[in-house]
Amino acid sequence: MSTESEAYVLRQDEAGVATLTLNRPGQYNALSSAMIGALADALKAVAEDRAIRVVVLAAAGKAFCAGHDLKEMRANPSKAFQQALFSRCGKLMTSLLALPQPVIARVHGIATAAGCQLVSMCDLAVAADTARFAVSGINVGLFCSTPAVGLSRNVGRKRAFEMLVTGDFIDAAAASQAGLINRAVPADALDQEIARLAQSICAKSPHAIAIGKRLFYRQLEMGIEAAYQVAGETMACNMMAEDAAEGIDAFIAKRPPVWQGR
Amino acid sequence: MSTESEAYVLRQDEAGVATLTLNRPGQYNALSSAMIGALADALKAVAEDRAIRVVVLAAAGKAFCAGHDLKEMRANPSKAFQQALFSRCGKLMTSLLALPQPVIARVHGIATAAGCQLVSMCDLAVAADTARFAVSGINVGLFCSTPAVGLSRNVGRKRAFEMLVTGDFIDAAAASQAGLINRAVPADALDQEIARLAQSICAKSPHAIAIGKRLFYRQLEMGIEAAYQVAGETMACNMMAEDAAEGIDAFIAKRPPVWQGR
Amino acid sequence: MSTESEAYVLRQDEAGVATLTLNRPGQYNALSSAMIGALADALKAVAEDRAIRVVVLAAAGKAFCAGHDLKEMRANPSKAFQQALFSRCGKLMTSLLALPQPVIARVHGIATAAGCQLVSMCDLAVAADTARFAVSGINVGLFCSTPAVGLSRNVGRKRAFEMLVTGDFIDAAAASQAGLINRAVPADALDQEIARLAQSICAKSPHAIAIGKRLFYRQLEMGIEAAYQVAGETMACNMMAEDAAEGIDAFIAKRPPVWQGR
Repeated sequence: MSTESEAYVLRQDEAGVATLTLNRPGQYNALSSAMIGALADALKAVAEDRAIRVVVLAAAGKAFCAGHDLKEMRANPSKAFQQALFSRCGKLMTSLLALPQPVIARVHGIATAAGCQLVSMCDLAVAADTARFAVSGINVGLFCSTPAVGLSRNVGRKRAFEMLVTGDFIDAAAASQAGLINRAVPADALDQEIARLAQSICAKSPHAIAIGKRLFYRQLEMGIEAAYQVAGETMACNMMAEDAAEGIDAFIAKRPPVWQGR
Repeated sequence: MSTESEAYVLRQDEAGVATLTLNRPGQYNALSSAMIGALADALKAVAEDRAIRVVVLAAAGKAFCAGHDLKEMRANPSKAFQQALFSRCGKLMTSLLALPQPVIARVHGIATAAGCQLVSMCDLAVAADTARFAVSGINVGLFCSTPAVGLSRNVGRKRAFEMLVTGDFIDAAAASQAGLINRAVPADALDQEIARLAQSICAKSPHAIAIGKRLFYRQLEMGIEAAYQVAGETMACNMMAEDAAEGIDAFIAKRPPVWQGR
Repeated sequence: MSTESEAYVLRQDEAGVATLTLNRPGQYNALSSAMIGALADALKAVAEDRAIRVVVLAAAGKAFCAGHDLKEMRANPSKAFQQALFSRCGKLMTSLLALPQPVIARVHGIATAAGCQLVSMCDLAVAADTARFAVSGINVGLFCSTPAVGLSRNVGRKRAFEMLVTGDFIDAAAASQAGLINRAVPADALDQEIARLAQSICAKSPHAIAIGKRLFYRQLEMGIEAAYQVAGETMACNMMAEDAAEGIDAFIAKRPPVWQGR
């Protein structure tokens, strides 16, 4: 079987965790049209799968993701192609925020340009301490405008601007300190740390996680008065759910809670 | 005298500093309806008291504040009760920003859920290095939606999201590094550091502090052009006040200034 | 020749880098009306000069900039004067964001009040490790309302608020950790580090840098959906430019790119 006929994105489910693996290691998992389509489809399937509590976004080979497929972009020079490409890619990126389950980026190797953007748009990110991050489009005359959207919402503006105009790499420790990732761990402890984080989320009420994630990103874009209004309404709705009653009763009775489905 | 008949919030004034102390140590100062009402009343009284220059928000007993009163919430399961509770609590939280005086949280022990939110909504926060912070509602099936509003405006989004979906504690050093508090100090130096900060603010023009605090939160919600417009107008108004004339003249004459009231 | 007859702002061009030097060392480069006018004029000239790729904002003497000229402000007490002053100063500050070229602040000595604001509004900032930063207007009864706009968009809100109400200095290491500057370096390595950063930017496509900078600040003020829409459109336009085609072709051919003008 040729490499091209293999799935662009692999999916493995285990105990409520769906691991999606970008699977074009020979192309450093470039976000070609086919890869964008495959990842969008995989996320759509996961969104509708109530057995899945957490998504891990991983990658095969030496790199996490090296960004867009420059050869494909040059082979299709029409503005219509470019507009469609970035429109689909933007929808993919915001679909990560809209997914009911939390998404954890499992980063190793390099995450550059739209690959760095992918990390920034996941809810959580843990990296091997050998991972490196850059928004390096500027090196080929293409400012990383779409990656800037996610990057500048995770990282202070002077650091983000520097990365965008120099194209320089930062290491995992700097990425953690800047807020681009949650933490860096030794490469051989990466899977263990991802599993620990995923299991912590799996132990929670999937209903509460889903309404909380939606509220989190929604209120971030509001003034503080409006944010409190929608957040207060969300809390009152959350209290009407069986899981909250069960959770509080279990807490008071000092027993473990039993959650409903999402 | 029974514990219940004692004031929910104690107030002690000294040299322009009003210290409000949450006073239900047996309930870890839970934000019950009665506690919310008492704190709202205390803040309202302070707002109108022109002798007060700074507010310190402290707490009695082993904990700063463990969040909402879960037993009371379960005993009043109607949606109307929950909506009223979170509406009043949201108003309490934003009243901290509207208060003319700066508010310093004096944090020791744990600050969890709405207790962590209280820290996030104070203008300044200093904690004992033994203090710990969590938004732990998710452990009982209740995502900390309202605490997320303040938390996500102090702390980077990946760290905030992790705290919200895991319910894990962070220590005072991590809270300081993340921006949730201004700094952590040894527990036995906490009162001294709070006093130092309060005295620094008391030495300033109360008029300038009040208009500056109002401007600070207002401009944060604006685009940068609008922010500069309102900030420039505020500076021009500030220059019309006697305190600015006095302050600049004193500076030029190398003598200490004498401020007017608020 | 008297000091007063010398230019308020010096300009020196070298290899695509325009260095603008605030030149009233005896007044710690105070932002008097004349200095604001001179700097605005210098930036306007640079904006139209297609040979310039990067601007370095430096200062002569012991201080970077000590803020507004308090003596001038007191000598012109009318509200009309103050309004005009802050209106012109606000326009100067936002013109830094509108400039097509990146601006790097080269900070040494003290940067206080509007001098600290100037640092916050530059795209990038590198400081000598002996530099110190404060928004100290509050010490003279004048809350740093306009500096708060830039400061609070670079630095977490609790730290920004503390600086504004205490007027206390932070050192260069703290400024770097907080995000106010990109980094601090030993004083004798400052010019070398500024040159390194400037040369990195000069090596990039000036067209891509200009459209990227404009996009960066524009999308920061938008919700994430709108931000992706404008960023995606920017990427598609960027791909239509000769520089992107050249950059990608050079990358694929493993040769250095040759950029067009801006």
